[in-house]
Amino acid sequence: MNTLGKNFVFTSFGESHGRAVGGVLDGVPAGVRIDLDRIREALDKRAGRFEAKGDETIRRGAGVSPRAKREADEVEWLSGVLDGVTLGTPIAFIIRNADARSEDYDWLKDNYRPGHADRTYQEKYGIRDHRGGGRASARETASRVVAGAVAQQLLAEKNIQISAQLIQVGNETNPDNFAQYIADIQQQGDSIGGIVECIITGLPVGLGEPIFDKLQSHLAYAMLSINACKGFEYGSGFEGVGLKGSEMYLSNDPQLISGGIAGGISDGNPIVFRCVFKPTATNRKTLSTLNSQPLKLLEPLKPLEQPLGLKVGRHDACIAVRAVAVVEAMAALVLQDFLTALNS
Amino acid sequence: MNTLGKNFVFTSFGESHGRAVGGVLDGVPAGVRIDLDRIREALDKRAGRFEAKGDETIRRGAGVSPRAKREADEVEWLSGVLDGVTLGTPIAFIIRNADARSEDYDWLKDNYRPGHADRTYQEKYGIRDHRGGGRASARETASRVVAGAVAQQLLAEKNIQISAQLIQVGNETNPDNFAQYIADIQQQGDSIGGIVECIITGLPVGLGEPIFDKLQSHLAYAMLSINACKGFEYGSGFEGVGLKGSEMYLSNDPQLISGGIAGGISDGNPIVFRCVFKPTATNRKTLSTLNSQPLKLLEPLKPLEQPLGLKVGRHDACIAVRAVAVVEAMAALVLQDFLTALNS
Amino acid sequence: MNTLGKNFVFTSFGESHGRAVGGVLDGVPAGVRIDLDRIREALDKRAGRFEAKGDETIRRGAGVSPRAKREADEVEWLSGVLDGVTLGTPIAFIIRNADARSEDYDWLKDNYRPGHADRTYQEKYGIRDHRGGGRASARETASRVVAGAVAQQLLAEKNIQISAQLIQVGNETNPDNFAQYIADIQQQGDSIGGIVECIITGLPVGLGEPIFDKLQSHLAYAMLSINACKGFEYGSGFEGVGLKGSEMYLSNDPQLISGGIAGGISDGNPIVFRCVFKPTATNRKTLSTLNSQPLKLLEPLKPLEQPLGLKVGRHDACIAVRAVAVVEAMAALVLQDFLTALNS
Amino acid sequence: MNTLGKNFVFTSFGESHGRAVGGVLDGVPAGVRIDLDRIREALDKRAGRFEAKGDETIRRGAGVSPRAKREADEVEWLSGVLDGVTLGTPIAFIIRNADARSEDYDWLKDNYRPGHADRTYQEKYGIRDHRGGGRASARETASRVVAGAVAQQLLAEKNIQISAQLIQVGNETNPDNFAQYIADIQQQGDSIGGIVECIITGLPVGLGEPIFDKLQSHLAYAMLSINACKGFEYGSGFEGVGLKGSEMYLSNDPQLISGGIAGGISDGNPIVFRCVFKPTATNRKTLSTLNSQPLKLLEPLKPLEQPLGLKVGRHDACIAVRAVAVVEAMAALVLQDFLTALNS
Repeated sequence: MNTLGKNFVFTSFGESHGRAVGGVLDGVPAGVRIDLDRIREALDKRAGRFEAKGDETIRRGAGVSPRAKREADEVEWLSGVLDGVTLGTPIAFIIRNADARSEDYDWLKDNYRPGHADRTYQEKYGIRDHRGGGRASARETASRVVAGAVAQQLLAEKNIQISAQLIQVGNETNPDNFAQYIADIQQQGDSIGGIVECIITGLPVGLGEPIFDKLQSHLAYAMLSINACKGFEYGSGFEGVGLKGSEMYLSNDPQLISGGIAGGISDGNPIVFRCVFKPTATNRKTLSTLNSQPLKLLEPLKPLEQPLGLKVGRHDACIAVRAVAVVEAMAALVLQDFLTALNS
Repeated sequence: MNTLGKNFVFTSFGESHGRAVGGVLDGVPAGVRIDLDRIREALDKRAGRFEAKGDETIRRGAGVSPRAKREADEVEWLSGVLDGVTLGTPIAFIIRNADARSEDYDWLKDNYRPGHADRTYQEKYGIRDHRGGGRASARETASRVVAGAVAQQLLAEKNIQISAQLIQVGNETNPDNFAQYIADIQQQGDSIGGIVECIITGLPVGLGEPIFDKLQSHLAYAMLSINACKGFEYGSGFEGVGLKGSEMYLSNDPQLISGGIAGGISDGNPIVFRCVFKPTATNRKTLSTLNSQPLKLLEPLKPLEQPLGLKVGRHDACIAVRAVAVVEAMAALVLQDFLTALNS
Repeated sequence: MNTLGKNFVFTSFGESHGRAVGGVLDGVPAGVRIDLDRIREALDKRAGRFEAKGDETIRRGAGVSPRAKREADEVEWLSGVLDGVTLGTPIAFIIRNADARSEDYDWLKDNYRPGHADRTYQEKYGIRDHRGGGRASARETASRVVAGAVAQQLLAEKNIQISAQLIQVGNETNPDNFAQYIADIQQQGDSIGGIVECIITGLPVGLGEPIFDKLQSHLAYAMLSINACKGFEYGSGFEGVGLKGSEMYLSNDPQLISGGIAGGISDGNPIVFRCVFKPTATNRKTLSTLNSQPLKLLEPLKPLEQPLGLKVGRHDACIAVRAVAVVEAMAALVLQDFLTALNS
Repeated sequence: MNTLGKNFVFTSFGESHGRAVGGVLDGVPAGVRIDLDRIREALDKRAGRFEAKGDETIRRGAGVSPRAKREADEVEWLSGVLDGVTLGTPIAFIIRNADARSEDYDWLKDNYRPGHADRTYQEKYGIRDHRGGGRASARETASRVVAGAVAQQLLAEKNIQISAQLIQVGNETNPDNFAQYIADIQQQGDSIGGIVECIITGLPVGLGEPIFDKLQSHLAYAMLSINACKGFEYGSGFEGVGLKGSEMYLSNDPQLISGGIAGGISDGNPIVFRCVFKPTATNRKTLSTLNSQPLKLLEPLKPLEQPLGLKVGRHDACIAVRAVAVVEAMAALVLQDFLTALNS
């Protein structure tokens, strides 16, 4: 439900307009000095704030909503840490929500946005926190990123590196053009999707189990849990569907042959996977279309009679930009869960 | 490890050259008369045998290895069923292995096939059943298909239908050309990949949970557990990366808007997902390349000095053909697990 | 590890001298107005504070340490609740630690108390929070009691009642004598054990599963997880070992015949179980014995050369008094987990 | 449901009058030569057959039903084993049911025995296998004993020994008198309960986790899952409730101080626990009382108008005799699960 992992267990909680989002991380070994800078950087990357690393698109926070950038991401540690060092007990942390501006969302109380979970939530639960999308909003990914950063620190100590980046925006594949393209989209009050690629190096052989605990299954599971993710592929993926067996297996390219995973188990080669993210639904053009009848899920949404005068630019033009940090976090949680099982 | 599901639990066992493959299915309600015909048909579809339904490529068992077609798939029920009716207790079943011809695999005792799990297994376990690929072979999917057929029977009683089909072979997208294309590939002693599309209709609203039990996460998990699967996408998927938000959300097309799942929860629309399968590694061309040094996983495989005189046609030219039945089975297991949780 | 339950999931965190103890409760249905009084009463009962109900021993907080009584048990809700009503999302709460007086525990930094987890923790984790017993202290039970109170509220709505009470202190079985007996023990600077009996009424038929999910298994599991609990029995229990089958089954007494559970499944009769609690180790007499060599676990502890001048009465003379509230909480969590699975 | 363990996973299946009982054991390391003698001995002990070890009561199979002694316990290995050596893949095994004599149970088709699960099963599932008690019968413990024997073999390789024995029958505590006492009871057509004590030695420090994965919780869980078990205690247990803290902690007796477990974690001392078993309900005296109205669970059973002419001695006079083997098996499964997690 709200928990991920078997030996390195992350429990997430919090709504975007509640008091805080946060999590509990269980399985962190004792004696680790938490790298607060790493956590800070990961939260910055997620928020589209200035990012020291080289990626232009992320550094300028291309297309990221101003509200997201302003999210105050101060982490408060509630347990499991003593003088900055882990105790081996569960680590609970919270990030208090700021920039509430709940009143911005009053119009949502009786309306439903297309492509959002508003209606399924109402249908399933009979109640929902309409403010800011409640639990369905991207705000909960802040918890994931904190937990993932702790995991990445542990992995880095074993020379396992995880590095994700945006490789495609809409149909554009040249990174030099990403920022401008996103800016144009934003100006139009529209949004666009993207593809994030993640490379994992230094993984030892043996992570994963055959049949139902395959490493690729767990990675796919984790990525498809990210808001707006519509697909996962690794190795040859969908792109490689045209390759013949002879081309693939005689290529000497591990990425084509196994993609770093054979029989569900890591084989020592780098793992490269890709996720595709859809465009956000909350943009000026789309919000002109709402429906206030919660139960008729199969009906298309009807345009509002009076369009709302929403300001351009309050929302993400390309959510994939911010998903990069979340992809890394999820990969880290999955790998650290396997490594904890191996007791290494 | 070898178990899938939380409330409708399937445990799989068996190696291809052991005594039997089989499984235990826990969570089947009492009082159900098992539909043996449905199970028979599913096993036939998996084996590439004659299939009554219309798909030409599968019906002729295009490119399927003769050995696979000959697999005797007699299911023996060991528990949980009394006079053909379920008791509500765990259902254990086996399918005894036939057509062993273990000696065909003697050459594998000290050699390793590219793209297979041979080397990771040896590395991780220090022992492996070299006969027929042991547990990594596709034979274990026979168990999945039996369990999946039971699940599909339960789902059908609630008007939930699952239907998968091959939609692409290599770069070919016209079904009329599939059979010939595969035959040509097989003649060359080569192999090719494919894409399977699965459509789920009649699903009630409410399956899935936000955050870490999203329906799409579970589907992706299950599909990526199938041998040779390299990717999963649903709704707009990778293909739709070029769509702008305005195009997507004002399209009135549920497949573009939500793909049948919103916020991780089924929204009542059909769910359409696609999986890509790589070409099999075991074909005449590839088997000319082997390496017998198990520990050097990162080294490319070296060609055998003496090519083996393997007969053309003993192996699958397009494994995606047979994967269709497994995709349906996995989808059924996932959905039935969610439905059992909802007690319906 | 730190999580209990499958469908009604409670994750606990916090050390006694950390910032807070707390928990995350997942699976609470939406739309429930949390009964804060019930939570307040349960925490009071746990802390040995004034308790309105009739039990003399608990009301006077017999033998309860002054420090425990002073624990400020203010619950802060971090998520999952909006205007006092549950959202159906995970409910995170904390109880900030007060009355730290960590310096009281400085002497523990290099010493180990008998009967405590000090040495196993050090051995297993290489680090421990010596302050107040860290995670092993009874303080974490405050979280359990909060979560259990929420569960009890949900159960009460279905007319399921859980009521525990102290039925034996040492060898004394007459409640009228409990308070005095405990006072005497406390005066001696000593401690004593006790037995808590819990009665569950109104449970529907059908909770539990045969074989490995028996209701009694889960109750036993939960009770044995309480600090100082050394045994669990239900129905005829250990006491009834002398009964012949004829006496038992022809007695017409459901408590003898089934104890409320048949074949692992609740049968509609009341369930009565009992737990025994050992005396606390932290009392004046025992603390004169310490050992500072952590690795020699099998060696008996050696007396300190200089006895510590600890004041009489800082610790619990009979921990079973305070365990009553925890027993109720644990029973509630177990039952609510089963009920959630039944969707009722 | 029918699965136990997290890393060393045992899935049980089979009804007493179905084709077979059996199980799947997942997590057994590769390369182990299965000790078939050990399995044979364990099954013999469970069946009350001749037992080479010294215990008189068990050796003569005191009070064990002739039918139980005759159970043919031939184990057939279906997977996971190659030439007697484990592959590291799931091990499936079956024990085919013999001595069916289902007709002996025809009278049960519309009747319900007191103290049995007959009525709860019917109520919960709407169907039950009336033959021999179906899944509720003790026959399924044969699977547990096989799996437990495999676990015990692995533990023994690490010098961990598990040894259980009967220490009390009814109120009799002198083993010299057990056999006669049971014989007398059997002659009367009655039954009696007993207490089994289990001693674990050689356990390393560190098994178990604080809070919710305490070693004692898991042991209690496993023991309470055994048919007829009504209680579990360890260390000082219920018996020690009269001990003061000073007596307990200054005793230098590890059994009183910690019972081998501190803070939920094994501390290197032997662990001694005890389980109490109630008398069997199926004996001549009790079977004169039946009730054929399944839904009135809260009504006492009414005597049959015509008593059945059942032969004396077909059933167990003291089920605790046969439970000894099951207690050892369950302890082994729990410990091996923890050890597998520690990768040792």
